[in-house]
Amino acid sequence: MQYGFFDDTNREYVINSPKTPFPWINYLGNKDFFGLISNTAGGYTFYKDAKFRRLTRYRYNNVPIDTGGRYYYLKDEETIWNPGFKPSQTKLDHYECRHGLGYTRFLSQKNGVSSNLLCFIPLDYMGEVHLLKLQNDSNKIKKIKLFSFAEWCLWNAEDDMANFQRNLSTGEVEVEGSTIYHKTEYKERRNHFAFFSANVKIDGFDTDRESFIGMHNGFNNPEVVENGNSKNSIAHGWSPIASHYIEIELQPGEEKDFVFILAYVENEKDDKWSSKAVINKSKAYKMMEQFDSSKKVLAAFEELQNYWSKLLDTFQLESNEPKLNRMVNIWNQYQCMVTFNMSRSASFFESGIGRGMGFRDSNQDLIGFVHQVPELAKERILDIAATQFEDGGCYHQYQPLTKMGNHALGGDFNDDPLWLILSVTSYIKETGDFGILDEQVPFDNDESKAKSLFHHLHVSFYHVVNNLGPNQLPLIGRADWNDCLNLNCFSENPNESFQTTGNKKGNTAESLMIAGLFVVYGKEYVKLCNQIGKGEDAKTAQIHIDKMIEAVKSKGWDGEWYLRAYDYFGNKVGSNENEEGKIFIESQGWCTMAEIGADEGMPEKALNSVKKMLDTPYGIVLNNPAFTEYRIEYGEISTYPAGYKENAGIFCHNNPWIIIGETLLGRGDQAWDYFKKICPAYLEEISELHKVEPYIYCQMIAGKDAHKPGEGKNSWLTGTAAWNYYTITQYILGIQPDYNGLRIDPCIPSNWKEFKVIRKFRNATYNINIYNPNGNCKGINSLSINGIEITGNLIPVHPEGNYQIDVHM
Amino acid sequence: MQYGFFDDTNREYVINSPKTPFPWINYLGNKDFFGLISNTAGGYTFYKDAKFRRLTRYRYNNVPIDTGGRYYYLKDEETIWNPGFKPSQTKLDHYECRHGLGYTRFLSQKNGVSSNLLCFIPLDYMGEVHLLKLQNDSNKIKKIKLFSFAEWCLWNAEDDMANFQRNLSTGEVEVEGSTIYHKTEYKERRNHFAFFSANVKIDGFDTDRESFIGMHNGFNNPEVVENGNSKNSIAHGWSPIASHYIEIELQPGEEKDFVFILAYVENEKDDKWSSKAVINKSKAYKMMEQFDSSKKVLAAFEELQNYWSKLLDTFQLESNEPKLNRMVNIWNQYQCMVTFNMSRSASFFESGIGRGMGFRDSNQDLIGFVHQVPELAKERILDIAATQFEDGGCYHQYQPLTKMGNHALGGDFNDDPLWLILSVTSYIKETGDFGILDEQVPFDNDESKAKSLFHHLHVSFYHVVNNLGPNQLPLIGRADWNDCLNLNCFSENPNESFQTTGNKKGNTAESLMIAGLFVVYGKEYVKLCNQIGKGEDAKTAQIHIDKMIEAVKSKGWDGEWYLRAYDYFGNKVGSNENEEGKIFIESQGWCTMAEIGADEGMPEKALNSVKKMLDTPYGIVLNNPAFTEYRIEYGEISTYPAGYKENAGIFCHNNPWIIIGETLLGRGDQAWDYFKKICPAYLEEISELHKVEPYIYCQMIAGKDAHKPGEGKNSWLTGTAAWNYYTITQYILGIQPDYNGLRIDPCIPSNWKEFKVIRKFRNATYNINIYNPNGNCKGINSLSINGIEITGNLIPVHPEGNYQIDVHM
Repeated sequence: MQYGFFDDTNREYVINSPKTPFPWINYLGNKDFFGLISNTAGGYTFYKDAKFRRLTRYRYNNVPIDTGGRYYYLKDEETIWNPGFKPSQTKLDHYECRHGLGYTRFLSQKNGVSSNLLCFIPLDYMGEVHLLKLQNDSNKIKKIKLFSFAEWCLWNAEDDMANFQRNLSTGEVEVEGSTIYHKTEYKERRNHFAFFSANVKIDGFDTDRESFIGMHNGFNNPEVVENGNSKNSIAHGWSPIASHYIEIELQPGEEKDFVFILAYVENEKDDKWSSKAVINKSKAYKMMEQFDSSKKVLAAFEELQNYWSKLLDTFQLESNEPKLNRMVNIWNQYQCMVTFNMSRSASFFESGIGRGMGFRDSNQDLIGFVHQVPELAKERILDIAATQFEDGGCYHQYQPLTKMGNHALGGDFNDDPLWLILSVTSYIKETGDFGILDEQVPFDNDESKAKSLFHHLHVSFYHVVNNLGPNQLPLIGRADWNDCLNLNCFSENPNESFQTTGNKKGNTAESLMIAGLFVVYGKEYVKLCNQIGKGEDAKTAQIHIDKMIEAVKSKGWDGEWYLRAYDYFGNKVGSNENEEGKIFIESQGWCTMAEIGADEGMPEKALNSVKKMLDTPYGIVLNNPAFTEYRIEYGEISTYPAGYKENAGIFCHNNPWIIIGETLLGRGDQAWDYFKKICPAYLEEISELHKVEPYIYCQMIAGKDAHKPGEGKNSWLTGTAAWNYYTITQYILGIQPDYNGLRIDPCIPSNWKEFKVIRKFRNATYNINIYNPNGNCKGINSLSINGIEITGNLIPVHPEGNYQIDVHM
Repeated sequence: MQYGFFDDTNREYVINSPKTPFPWINYLGNKDFFGLISNTAGGYTFYKDAKFRRLTRYRYNNVPIDTGGRYYYLKDEETIWNPGFKPSQTKLDHYECRHGLGYTRFLSQKNGVSSNLLCFIPLDYMGEVHLLKLQNDSNKIKKIKLFSFAEWCLWNAEDDMANFQRNLSTGEVEVEGSTIYHKTEYKERRNHFAFFSANVKIDGFDTDRESFIGMHNGFNNPEVVENGNSKNSIAHGWSPIASHYIEIELQPGEEKDFVFILAYVENEKDDKWSSKAVINKSKAYKMMEQFDSSKKVLAAFEELQNYWSKLLDTFQLESNEPKLNRMVNIWNQYQCMVTFNMSRSASFFESGIGRGMGFRDSNQDLIGFVHQVPELAKERILDIAATQFEDGGCYHQYQPLTKMGNHALGGDFNDDPLWLILSVTSYIKETGDFGILDEQVPFDNDESKAKSLFHHLHVSFYHVVNNLGPNQLPLIGRADWNDCLNLNCFSENPNESFQTTGNKKGNTAESLMIAGLFVVYGKEYVKLCNQIGKGEDAKTAQIHIDKMIEAVKSKGWDGEWYLRAYDYFGNKVGSNENEEGKIFIESQGWCTMAEIGADEGMPEKALNSVKKMLDTPYGIVLNNPAFTEYRIEYGEISTYPAGYKENAGIFCHNNPWIIIGETLLGRGDQAWDYFKKICPAYLEEISELHKVEPYIYCQMIAGKDAHKPGEGKNSWLTGTAAWNYYTITQYILGIQPDYNGLRIDPCIPSNWKEFKVIRKFRNATYNINIYNPNGNCKGINSLSINGIEITGNLIPVHPEGNYQIDVHM
């Protein structure tokens, strides 16, 4: 069942039933100021940090779900309705929510009045702009009462939902003209305020929630809207809100438009006041003037669209798979950029009050956006690397505001350092900017300990070498990529963390996933060293890699697949010997990508075992059989019900590792089959089961042991986006940036006859046509540039210009 | 305007309009298992710790407010209604919520069906019992569909409202017979589960919130109730709930009753399962059997009522002020017991996820319940004292579960130690148990550092002596009783705490409040020393007290009132020299209670200044004039809007200090006038303004500078309850437990002609009649025991028995 459709021309997903199986959301904003917006206009806004600088209040866990947002109530005679359907839930004659790139538009109609509400955050603007057009489609004069609504968060989102003994006494506002200012705590230590403005004269306002809604009413039936008249209330404590009241008369056929702005302003400490207790609003006035007409708003909207076009145009695919085209060209890239902006902070599954930026998350996410915003990717790399320790270990998380490592959590997640090699080499391959390696980057955020970024890579590599266990395999530390496989924790208390409790480092438990990862990025390190003339470094490193390969082959192979780990007691994890958790996906992916034991056929056997034991109609599960009871020596993984999350759920992040492995084996049909299973556009028709957005990857899909296999969860903020984008573009479509050019090495389904890619790379634009007349999966026969055939599959770096590339498989 | 009335006979407050200006709540439970219940059945339950062991989910900040609770939906033809009005808010033909002592009863009627829902937690029972009686008052057969509803919290209340990426995948339940078991995380580290049972065969059930309510419906219109049929859903993740479905047929006049139990069960670690993945339910079966009939339930209810009668009977007043009688005899004592149980953890203003037990809070609260539960008071004293340091300082808070001091917050609140003298002397005076002084009590929870409790008092006293500032007045440390007067903080960052940031100890800022407190409890210490034959200790202590008195007189007197403090820079706080905050209540209260400068008339002048500058129609404000801008050197106090909380709000906790001061001056009319202003029963008629419960003290009432002077906030969990009880009983009514007997020293309004008190003290019961034929305020002329006049005002300790006391003023 579908709840909407893709409008590829407009790069929009169009939801035409407001009652989606879960709120289907979008993100507004590109830098510093952000809004989350659902298909019923629910959600909230924040400045930079979703926890500490939240503008509007939002309640997760709410009933009905997704209640609270930026709302417009239209009272037309006795009918009250909202352009986004909620919160009144009045049945509309027409409803459309169009989620686009950085904007959302609601087109709706009720009783002869149509509404067009466009919400977006203009580039470099610290406010959400709402352009509301109302049109009288009837042949009678329409008198409409319009009420806007936003509820202020008292800035610190966590405190806002807990510290009532203080917060119910602190709320303060000002009203001037058609603008409502939220200034709680402005009189003390805050130098920032928010405002909600209208570009027309208003007929009333409310700023006190109880006055507007009524003590016993809900968002669905505010007292003021029911009564058709605002109370001009001024909030003193309790819950400050902002609501404008506008009386509108529309002649038959007439259209009127209104601009509302929900924005954030910072003043200098010494320039906070215009007079005693009155905010200095000069910056706010300028912001309002910037968008005081629909014309100005539409100009900024066009700018935003151009901005996104430019970002996405770096990679454009034309294949015979329209669903794939829209994912590659629009939605997957878009999700990668959202993930860049948000990391794991704020979604409808991440409450925005939790963790900082993950070291490993950020490095991996980068492979999804480095081609779109290489300069920001560089900045991110340098920020991340600065939280590393001198021995190559690193803080597992850091705070985006301060960019400092998170001391409470610390380090000892032993896969972390290797991901830095992935991000840095990806960046250089995309840009050719080897200069980044010479950047002086602090350790532990201490400038006095700065060394070159190359040195950071060096210690990353050797952090593994220096932390080997009894089988000469990498010690796992607190956990490797799978945060829930906690081999050194042993927690019995439900209020303890599985990652920070117990013998965190451990000197026994080893990870085969890190072993594979080490070989993959060790090879990258060697390649890089050779590239920059550090042949000796390369040679030494290669010795360690070879040793690791031997260790995996002798101690990490279970007969039909790679082991997952050795536990604290030296017992095998992910072995046929085990009753549950016989096989895990991560080590199959990484050891296959590392091609360990290729001569002995290990990768092929391993992937065949994946197919046999982990594959399902909805994707590849993480492990099998699922754990049915708590194993204290395995930790959190065994706490989840079978089939969910890391306990045999389809954890989408790691499916691409298997897909890449399949492409390395040349098995294009299998790779494509796996790819499609978790690709959201291919799941649109089972949305009632999949539940989450069909335009966006989710972190997890319920596995075969679950109650409802195929049910998705935790959409938007997941490394899945980057890994799938990386996999489809570089390993299936096979367009691979490399140090010295663009390599073309597709591995496709045998029934694909051709596809085209336009790829901007460094300064050139390549129009790449790939033909597959013989129904192959992999291997190219010829490659020509502007009609001239070259040897091999590497398009060298070209000067600015357009180039025609023809490839025959 | 009233929303109900007091039913003194039944010791109930009867709410007859469900739309109270704020949820008016009650507490169920007396030990370990508790429920908060509002006048519309909202609220939640927990075991021991409201943060870590929450049974049912609750959303603060909700709209409509107070949505979520233990609900019963009755579907009678097409009408859906709730016995407690919410959440359906269907207008009832009759509605009554009767909040009693440890129970709440809802009496309601709709369309010829009446419902009687009694909710309570039986003594020593770990579950809420709901007895629901339905009666057909019509002359037709009624077919009713009954749906119960409770929503499970995933145990850790804080995590439950934030960690969705995990929590939406973990929920697990079992259904067996008529019982729904909630077992999330039981399979791993938890050894506890919850259940919701019915004592009749059910016709269906639901355990998945989305199935029951529907994705887009609300608590007010669950899909299942609207459809009139349950779905027998089993929750797998998302939001587990419990709902029973029962079809009921009632003949005209027929009544049927149903028992529902919402309970908590712990199993031994090795006895968790009855078979693989199936909970061992034997304890649950026993608990259900305990209350499987209305007869058993009613027997337990009677026990509960007897329990409360026994507690309250320790002090019973009969005066010509019915409002006072009901406060003293019922509600003020009741609130003191609730505060004993809850400290500051869980109310409709305290979210239950915050702080631990306060050192100073707990010591002060004790004076409100020591006469009711002296044995528990003793236990509490020993727990508190064990968190003291060897130098007399102490942790400011400790965790009730572990009873360990809170390291994150630490100590250095320099008033803290003195309150221990208050609690211990109060305990001994009530019980005569001097043996408590010999109890060996650890310092810093370290048994090896245990010393006698008397030694703890000794170091408490000397902690002040050893921490004097430049004017020989007590250094304030992080703050004294007024947590918001932060003279050593200087915070500029809105995310910093005002108590834990900056130069916490300070060596300049001094507190006149601590000075007064020191003299008051220093004298108590001296009196105690003399009582137990430690005359030398007493003498030495007296020298320090005398010095302090001199320091206050020479450095702490501002001419018309006592200063409040010296700030970090040595400037006066609370002086006529200041533009704002010229005078503060706390130092007037304590220095007057200490009678400092009595010969010079200082107390009288100070209290006259209080009357002139701080008194308002709604109580005495904390300071005046209110602060209108942030003073970084004063801290949090200046962050509140003027008239709220510590910034010139009526902070009810400290009003009694002034009242006691007035009684010491013999000004009974003034004392009584102040007492009445904040006494909730006297505010019942202005409930629409006062907003919070008219049977319970609130922490704060908006002051004269506020938007709505008289508006109350933060009801239930406040030291106000204990201090007002202490003040009315011991200083106005003048019934004062003392080491060697009961002292009678009333200070009453001159127009009171007589009053009677029945006081159980140690083993005797005293029927005290106090006559005031001459219209005096203070001073007794004669006192007779069983007709025999004695000299003085001290009734010596008597053996068990009843004694008639006649007092003439």
